[in-house]
Amino acid sequence: MAESLKQTEQQFLEYVKKMTAYNEAIGLMYWDMRTGAPKQGLEQRSEVIGMISSEVFRMSTSEEMAAYIAELSGQENLSEVTLKTLEECKKDYDRNKKIPAEEYTEYVILQSKAESIWEDAKASSDFEMFRPYLEKLVEMNKRFISYWGYEGNKYNTLLDMYEPGVTVETLDQVFHQLREKIVPLVQQISESQNKPGTSFLFKHFEKDKQRDFSLKVLEQMGYNFKAGRLDETVHPFATGLNPGDVRVTTKYDETDFRTAVFGTIHEGGHALYEQNISSGLVGTPLCTGTSMGIHESQSLFYENFVGRHFSFWKKNYELLKEYASGQFNDVSIEDFYRAINESKPSLIRIEADELTYPLHIIIRYEIEKGLFNDEINVKDLPTIWNEKYEQYLGVKPEDDGLGVLQDVHWAGGSFGYFPSYALGYMYAAQLKNSMLKDLPNYDEILEEGNLLPIKEWFTKNVHQFGKLKKPLEILNDVTGEGLNAQHLIDYLYDKYSKVYQLN
Amino acid sequence: MAESLKQTEQQFLEYVKKMTAYNEAIGLMYWDMRTGAPKQGLEQRSEVIGMISSEVFRMSTSEEMAAYIAELSGQENLSEVTLKTLEECKKDYDRNKKIPAEEYTEYVILQSKAESIWEDAKASSDFEMFRPYLEKLVEMNKRFISYWGYEGNKYNTLLDMYEPGVTVETLDQVFHQLREKIVPLVQQISESQNKPGTSFLFKHFEKDKQRDFSLKVLEQMGYNFKAGRLDETVHPFATGLNPGDVRVTTKYDETDFRTAVFGTIHEGGHALYEQNISSGLVGTPLCTGTSMGIHESQSLFYENFVGRHFSFWKKNYELLKEYASGQFNDVSIEDFYRAINESKPSLIRIEADELTYPLHIIIRYEIEKGLFNDEINVKDLPTIWNEKYEQYLGVKPEDDGLGVLQDVHWAGGSFGYFPSYALGYMYAAQLKNSMLKDLPNYDEILEEGNLLPIKEWFTKNVHQFGKLKKPLEILNDVTGEGLNAQHLIDYLYDKYSKVYQLN
Repeated sequence: MAESLKQTEQQFLEYVKKMTAYNEAIGLMYWDMRTGAPKQGLEQRSEVIGMISSEVFRMSTSEEMAAYIAELSGQENLSEVTLKTLEECKKDYDRNKKIPAEEYTEYVILQSKAESIWEDAKASSDFEMFRPYLEKLVEMNKRFISYWGYEGNKYNTLLDMYEPGVTVETLDQVFHQLREKIVPLVQQISESQNKPGTSFLFKHFEKDKQRDFSLKVLEQMGYNFKAGRLDETVHPFATGLNPGDVRVTTKYDETDFRTAVFGTIHEGGHALYEQNISSGLVGTPLCTGTSMGIHESQSLFYENFVGRHFSFWKKNYELLKEYASGQFNDVSIEDFYRAINESKPSLIRIEADELTYPLHIIIRYEIEKGLFNDEINVKDLPTIWNEKYEQYLGVKPEDDGLGVLQDVHWAGGSFGYFPSYALGYMYAAQLKNSMLKDLPNYDEILEEGNLLPIKEWFTKNVHQFGKLKKPLEILNDVTGEGLNAQHLIDYLYDKYSKVYQLN
Repeated sequence: MAESLKQTEQQFLEYVKKMTAYNEAIGLMYWDMRTGAPKQGLEQRSEVIGMISSEVFRMSTSEEMAAYIAELSGQENLSEVTLKTLEECKKDYDRNKKIPAEEYTEYVILQSKAESIWEDAKASSDFEMFRPYLEKLVEMNKRFISYWGYEGNKYNTLLDMYEPGVTVETLDQVFHQLREKIVPLVQQISESQNKPGTSFLFKHFEKDKQRDFSLKVLEQMGYNFKAGRLDETVHPFATGLNPGDVRVTTKYDETDFRTAVFGTIHEGGHALYEQNISSGLVGTPLCTGTSMGIHESQSLFYENFVGRHFSFWKKNYELLKEYASGQFNDVSIEDFYRAINESKPSLIRIEADELTYPLHIIIRYEIEKGLFNDEINVKDLPTIWNEKYEQYLGVKPEDDGLGVLQDVHWAGGSFGYFPSYALGYMYAAQLKNSMLKDLPNYDEILEEGNLLPIKEWFTKNVHQFGKLKKPLEILNDVTGEGLNAQHLIDYLYDKYSKVYQLN
């Protein structure tokens, strides 16, 4: 009996390993598509990706999978990796099996249609064009929630897909707190007389030199080039194919070096996470970041707490000057620092700075929550959107292309995703607070340019576990508390008071 | 009944499409491994490739495949694509099923062990170290032949794997003819007083400039960059993932530009073949070159009949000078042409010129044929090898590393592969002869640098068919005759008499 259980466990792990192998192949095909695959091969490549993805989906919902779940669930003497893998597989299985097959197919078709309509609607700022698709997407997601069930709030079921354990109850509280504190700070800054000069940021900076500097920074961060590479794409990303192959991409703007430099640092933060997951998790679904939010905490930590920190530039400003062609010669490090930390309310989320960014997310959160609790209708979204932007950020979109239509997420049916971005900021600030206890010389570490202790701290406390620990479990284990917005608020007040010389 | 047959046909094609999709993913992973995949991810990547390859193997020998073969074989009203696909699948199925599973596994392990031992044996010129593995490989292949059966000559079964339809009877005749004619020509050349000067070939030629020139030449050939790309590797290759994605790689030697330029032209010839296969064959095993030999005819045609043709350089020599830094300034086009067509007996096959190359192949053919007809023993290979090199090429290896151990093929169990290379030369010369009837202005085409008519001729007569036609079928349809060594002999006599000013 025990012998046969051991055998089933082995077979289950082999089965899962095959699914992981297929996913790794798919991951490489996506990377290739986005970094230089020949255009004319893409139609066939998409078919290949589709066929292999279908096979993974089939395996995740097969009778064989059902049998493994039935036989292994509740068994003792299984390894921790098996238990957690089983848990992930069961979650997937339940989620996928509860939707009737015809509805799932209808939904996949709707998604792809909606994305293509959304592109046109955004380009022509025509919300009415997109509205029926968005209504249908919301309606189908509501039906899915009824199949899946929910606890407390219907929207929790969607949140759980991206940030397991995080609920409306928690988010209401932290987002309220953030909003109450950030809105007046943003207000104060926009009235400040001490705005930084930024014109020197936009001078010509050669692409190859930006790349060379970015590589230097990745190296300082402890990114392992034997387990990765840096390529160019339109939309930067990091992808962990396995811990020995985690690739970073970036984008170069020759009249704004910040795109590549902060973009690379951001993606580098994601990459460090994937490179340092315990090798014992390779070949299982646990071998990736535990959630969108924790992943984002790593990228944002490096982008903001490292890349936009004064001490980091004490080490690197002279180096940057060497790569640039004279653009910073007359600029003091203090002026440079203030310029790269400029904060200004804006319309577009992906262009927002770290202070205003959470407000963009809160707006989307409030809307999504309203939609799934029947408090907001899709037809009213443009009005609600614009009102909230005016209220929280003091700006108003001229048209829906710059407003409610700006993000692809809803067109893809990704409701519940947005909050992860803001969680990333809060997690990062909380982790930083705990890190300071172990690394009280944090500023010196940055000044010396040897960032390895930071990477090692994250590997020990976050990276290595992959999905073995849930996001809030990691947070609790490291910080001794749950989600707490105060750390982010303190950081933002402290930093921006100085940058804008507020009193 | 007819309805259900139609259905089975569709299901069979879907089944095959899935296998093709897996192979495309594997192809991309290999390309990636050889062009810059991070080292530390390779162990896991190999596992992924192994798992997906196993799945393809499983599918090719499954009960489902057996059922398709049984149900569809002999049926009328199937499309030509289905019929030929079925034929390919049946051939694979029979080949794989006739070997007992344990023996197959034993063989795979032996192969990989033998390759690794061979590397060491070659490095230390120690044939005795490699001998037991080679003996075992030959022995197992003999046993496989007994499982598979043979017609006429046991070695035919091995030849058929690489060049379907080509037999010992044919090869004996053409190789005898080639040997009788080439050996005295090589002899005459080595005694010639009119040897070309070549020292200017080995001056410094910047890598990036070599790349730029290579791209220009690919463009002239009609290589479609929207369906391909050029990368750098240690061992150049071309890979057709699908007709819209056919990639070329090359190698740069800054003190010998010929490596990159002729290498790119050679691989470009392979690539044109794969880019121009009919789109109706995508998703089937027919969507690739019909045989090793016909593939090689395309690469060798472009390398020698285009790239080493005087008219080609009439167009391109000035361009080459622009990319080079002064290296050819004092060199007339006539001297340049003679230099790149130098012929000299040498020990190493992959470094041989087009005149001596076939002799390297004939030696290997005679040895393989002897091995599988029990006329040669593995233990005598070094002696036999060296004797033949002295007899045909007038050179004698100092050690077995430069002799019998130089090629990886036997270590990988690829017996029957070598003849394809020489067939490529003969096919190319025969095709050229037929092409001249349609394109009598061939030399002018080269001089003008618009090589598209050549590509179009090949597409019409060779490329488009993929594996729909067998190699000798293509040869017959295009040239109206079977394999005929005379065209290659005429070409070599004509060309080398001029290059060496023989009388």
